[in-house]
Amino acid sequence: MAAATDTISFSRGAPSLDIVDIEGLKAATVAAFDKDPARIAGYGTSVGYPPLREWIADKHGVAVDQVLVTNGSMQADAFLFDALVTPETPVIVERPTYDRTLLGLRNRRGDLHPIGLESDGLDVAALEEALKGGLRPKLAHIIPNFQNPAGVTLSAAKRTRLLELATEYGFTIFEDDPYLDIRFRGESLPTMLSLDTQGSVVFASSFSKTVCPGLRTGYLVGPTNLIGKIASMATNTYIAPNMLAQATIFQFAVSGALETSIHNVRKALAERADALAAALSRHLPDAEFTVPDGGYFLWVDLGPEVDVHKLLPAAQERGVQVVKGTDFVLEGGEHSLRLAYSAVPADRVDEGVRRLAAAIEDCKLFVAIS
Amino acid sequence: MAAATDTISFSRGAPSLDIVDIEGLKAATVAAFDKDPARIAGYGTSVGYPPLREWIADKHGVAVDQVLVTNGSMQADAFLFDALVTPETPVIVERPTYDRTLLGLRNRRGDLHPIGLESDGLDVAALEEALKGGLRPKLAHIIPNFQNPAGVTLSAAKRTRLLELATEYGFTIFEDDPYLDIRFRGESLPTMLSLDTQGSVVFASSFSKTVCPGLRTGYLVGPTNLIGKIASMATNTYIAPNMLAQATIFQFAVSGALETSIHNVRKALAERADALAAALSRHLPDAEFTVPDGGYFLWVDLGPEVDVHKLLPAAQERGVQVVKGTDFVLEGGEHSLRLAYSAVPADRVDEGVRRLAAAIEDCKLFVAIS
Repeated sequence: MAAATDTISFSRGAPSLDIVDIEGLKAATVAAFDKDPARIAGYGTSVGYPPLREWIADKHGVAVDQVLVTNGSMQADAFLFDALVTPETPVIVERPTYDRTLLGLRNRRGDLHPIGLESDGLDVAALEEALKGGLRPKLAHIIPNFQNPAGVTLSAAKRTRLLELATEYGFTIFEDDPYLDIRFRGESLPTMLSLDTQGSVVFASSFSKTVCPGLRTGYLVGPTNLIGKIASMATNTYIAPNMLAQATIFQFAVSGALETSIHNVRKALAERADALAAALSRHLPDAEFTVPDGGYFLWVDLGPEVDVHKLLPAAQERGVQVVKGTDFVLEGGEHSLRLAYSAVPADRVDEGVRRLAAAIEDCKLFVAIS
Repeated sequence: MAAATDTISFSRGAPSLDIVDIEGLKAATVAAFDKDPARIAGYGTSVGYPPLREWIADKHGVAVDQVLVTNGSMQADAFLFDALVTPETPVIVERPTYDRTLLGLRNRRGDLHPIGLESDGLDVAALEEALKGGLRPKLAHIIPNFQNPAGVTLSAAKRTRLLELATEYGFTIFEDDPYLDIRFRGESLPTMLSLDTQGSVVFASSFSKTVCPGLRTGYLVGPTNLIGKIASMATNTYIAPNMLAQATIFQFAVSGALETSIHNVRKALAERADALAAALSRHLPDAEFTVPDGGYFLWVDLGPEVDVHKLLPAAQERGVQVVKGTDFVLEGGEHSLRLAYSAVPADRVDEGVRRLAAAIEDCKLFVAIS
């Protein structure tokens, strides 16, 4: 048994260093300096490093002027929210959803309407009900693949229906899709962006999950007018995003290293997700969860007797870090956790869950004694 | 004579590629990947790459928690303005001043009070007059060294007096100092940051002028509380700035390449500034300007018969680009230009000014004919 001081963290949605291709990135940076020194050194343009912008447009089959490459996809979210959300703007969010997005929308004082998730993604029938009841959202924030934190994926049928509703009720779907390429089981589903014929979708993704977070490169794809407006906001905020990082990502992609990296990440994450599911079944047989087909996260419901506010310090004491469910909802979440398996090598997962189970027992014991 | 199609640009405040140390940067990036792969790959922290943050703190003799490293210093400005400037906030600006800063303040609907510049910087007596008259600014935006666009430097005596006024009237000095290290003549003056004992100064600088713009790395130094507040804003906006670029800058600095780069930039810019002054005296003997002791820019007054709105297209036609004075003031500037000599090799400067003089003649001729 490892010492409890050697903490195992299921908290951060980041890849462990062993699945980041440092040598490949180093070679890509050198190639970038050798091939395009003027554009790496210069101010650049707010829409991003032009060859990477073209590569992204090609990947998604859109016009180049529909793409804006940013300093990470959180920055893309921030620009989009600044463009579309003012106080009282009605916004649909998933329940649960990514805590940082929720905070970004709350900070802009959007009027948030949470819609629950099912095992095949957003409860679109409940959304339709709300729309029929008079709700007129401007924006719906949807994480379609391997949702953060729930791990579920929006079905093909629901994607189509959601687009129909967006057209009918005139709202924009913000398809927030950083995990698109991190599917390790089953067939990929088409993005709503690719199905959209009405300009209803703004799509965001990132290289944080497929390359690494430290290069802080994400992007938006959307209607030309909106992208142009956001490009002006970007110029006024920072002139241009990071040219060195974006040129490095571009060289990494065209060299083939990106494809290899995605393959390796998928393989490692499949092992980690399976190890986590097995460990949960072994140490916490009453816990409820869905085994994910991709992405970084697993959402686990621990039942009404577990209060995550008490569990977190007990888990920390036992040497395991998790994120409490309450961070991902406006109300509720007291009995749930988000477990990120992206950063925990498969051979450490079982020990992590064993510690978590012990921490849950500590809490129950404490309740029984007190 | 070069063909007019080969445009000479005095418009952009960027270094030409021949004074950027591409090989040194490449080596610095490789060193960064070799020495600190985990921190380059990971999400990092909103305050910046820790070793670079410490290096900056050391350079300015401040505590580490007074420093925040950002994606370029424009992003630092944006955070600072978001923290301090709301609609109607009274703000002192220099007249003329950097167009992008002016736009940032106008976009936040600050109540801007321009104070003129003299050959030794801000007209501090005029500011004092305004303060005595009841003006109570929250912020004063000052570019102390080789001001953009005017090229002038705030004298030591005025720095001291400005700090006294900031204390007496309770405003914050935003010391915006990207050209600090680009002095090529005369003695350096102490920053107001280093003279400040009251926490009245927030200081910003950048590696865009000493290394290159494409690495988009700038920073803020200020009171711990304010920096902490801005660090939270940065977390919510982009989680962390670019770790690859910041680690590269850090390795570039500690290897000694930064010092060499600054030496080379100074030498080249001194030559370019002198060539520009000589060419102006030769081709435009009536133009008024101050020969700068550092920085990137020279401000030239062409006299009342020149309208820069007419001159710009004529100059473009002759194959020379400049920025009109009107961009740098709320009102006026019609007879002035900003000439950036940072991007024009010394042997091209004379030809550029010859074209500018010809364009001025074209405009006069046009007026005479029409």
